[in-house]
Amino acid sequence: MRTHTRQIILARRPDGIPCADDFALREVPLPVPAEGELLIENLYLSLDAAIRSWMKEDCTYFPPIPLGAPVRSTALGRVLASRHPDFRPGDVGVAYACSAWAGHATVPAAQFHRVDAGADHPLHYHLSLFSAMGLTPYFGMLDIGRPRPGETALISAAAGAVGSLAGQIARIKGCRVVGIAGSDEKCRMLVDEFGFDAAFNYKGKDCAQLSQDIARLCPDGVDIFFDNVGGEILDAALLNLAMFARIAFCGAIGDYNRQGPIPGPYHYWQILARCATVRGFLTLHYQDRFPAAIAEMRGWLADGRLKLSEDIVQGLDSVVPAFARLFRGENTGKLLVKLETGAG
Amino acid sequence: MRTHTRQIILARRPDGIPCADDFALREVPLPVPAEGELLIENLYLSLDAAIRSWMKEDCTYFPPIPLGAPVRSTALGRVLASRHPDFRPGDVGVAYACSAWAGHATVPAAQFHRVDAGADHPLHYHLSLFSAMGLTPYFGMLDIGRPRPGETALISAAAGAVGSLAGQIARIKGCRVVGIAGSDEKCRMLVDEFGFDAAFNYKGKDCAQLSQDIARLCPDGVDIFFDNVGGEILDAALLNLAMFARIAFCGAIGDYNRQGPIPGPYHYWQILARCATVRGFLTLHYQDRFPAAIAEMRGWLADGRLKLSEDIVQGLDSVVPAFARLFRGENTGKLLVKLETGAG
Repeated sequence: MRTHTRQIILARRPDGIPCADDFALREVPLPVPAEGELLIENLYLSLDAAIRSWMKEDCTYFPPIPLGAPVRSTALGRVLASRHPDFRPGDVGVAYACSAWAGHATVPAAQFHRVDAGADHPLHYHLSLFSAMGLTPYFGMLDIGRPRPGETALISAAAGAVGSLAGQIARIKGCRVVGIAGSDEKCRMLVDEFGFDAAFNYKGKDCAQLSQDIARLCPDGVDIFFDNVGGEILDAALLNLAMFARIAFCGAIGDYNRQGPIPGPYHYWQILARCATVRGFLTLHYQDRFPAAIAEMRGWLADGRLKLSEDIVQGLDSVVPAFARLFRGENTGKLLVKLETGAG
Repeated sequence: MRTHTRQIILARRPDGIPCADDFALREVPLPVPAEGELLIENLYLSLDAAIRSWMKEDCTYFPPIPLGAPVRSTALGRVLASRHPDFRPGDVGVAYACSAWAGHATVPAAQFHRVDAGADHPLHYHLSLFSAMGLTPYFGMLDIGRPRPGETALISAAAGAVGSLAGQIARIKGCRVVGIAGSDEKCRMLVDEFGFDAAFNYKGKDCAQLSQDIARLCPDGVDIFFDNVGGEILDAALLNLAMFARIAFCGAIGDYNRQGPIPGPYHYWQILARCATVRGFLTLHYQDRFPAAIAEMRGWLADGRLKLSEDIVQGLDSVVPAFARLFRGENTGKLLVKLETGAG
């Protein structure tokens, strides 16, 4: 029986992209669950951009991670000890935003969601395809994009896990799909591995050049724009909308590190000129449709029409370098950390 | 029989609010209709904000008005000569976006829509309530706003013809309606004459102050924003959206006279945060539903639930000063010019 575990604690608040000196590794006695809590062994950690904002002292939508405390994370874990009547040792589930970068953690039972560990897909899909990450492109593309055969769908951050799924779902629905990504290698991958019809590299291009690339690859205009990025890429897409275009507003990662007031798209007017629709959405509002969505995605996986883009690293020592890669756009899919079972 | 007519031509491209020097009046021989065209005598001109955007060299959604050409306009006119088998001299109709600021003009028969001159309402209603002006708030509020009883609708440029109708239609559908207008007098009119629940004056206020006014008058948030204006008022509205809000993007009159790149709304992000929908629309796409819409509005007029706000000036010499008033927010309703019959 283990008596200790390893944790990565927040040693200071990062300035820019987090680096090794912002964290410290320590070995501590296994934490003891309070009433209503569970002790879990983490099997996989989910490295999400949101964790970066929890590290900020002025984080508003979630309590900031205290200095000296383990870094908060979503994780897939196995229950070792339970002080809640609904859970027993051996249960496997996802602890949403309440586990830690650590071999083990105590979590509130209310935030732990049991999963079916015996299903016909890898266990870690519960942290990716069958979590918000996979459901976001599903509902964004289908409910807001409303793809019709022969239409053109344009995807920004297309080589990311969300973007690559959004594009594949549009393909399944009969669209021509064009991706925008940050390297020629990613563009090749989109076409060769994920079945995109075309892709182009946005790096080093201004709005006019981006607009030319879109016009060239989407000669009939953009019917659906799945927007993960905002900024100049959004503006370039607005300049190429087909009439009655739909924009699924999923994120604006290009703006997250900007300072001061951020102007909206300069070509906002095109929304009127093209009778377009821009809709923001949060996947949690589709909760009642999760089971049906997961069932449909399982079918696409089974018949090979959907591939998941994953980037899985091994061991607690890989967490900090992998997290930094996320902000340099160097990951190639959903970033997960697989922990050595029992190794802490 | 007249041989000449007077035209207002575009002498230079306006910088800001159009002024007298941007135009020139000239007398020319009556234009001669080509095959498929009609010569019409204009009875009423419709002064629309859209005309200002047609004056821009870079107008994208419609051909820009060439320098030296008569200013394009929608007009109610009487056919004097026809080179199309469907029309005869004496027919009265509306020439959509193809007549001119002139006593007479030739128009394509395909853009001339005969009206019933003997109906039980004033002839000029065909340029206002039963034209794009009246149909725009009808479809914008009902199809995009989708008002539900108890919701809050916020209307910018609310004392204008479109805005006052949009607000009244939201009231008919059971919404609480708040108007934004450019004078205290207009605000009083909205509440006392048009049945708005509240209204406030935007003049001299920045985005933060506008946002406070909206928050005060829309304590449960804005479910529907009928946007005629864009700019800071749009930004202030974005800061006060209720979840799942709908924004009918009808115009951006505040931007029409601005030069250079116009930043989109600084609070564009709120579209995502509130899961809101922004939709642009052009009334002409609802053409198949015009008869039903007009019938419904007639019913509302008849039972006193809908009032039309009009501002009618006389004679061609009044056109330019009245058009400038439109952009200073000084008109009190739909701006029409009544031309002296036969006077050119």
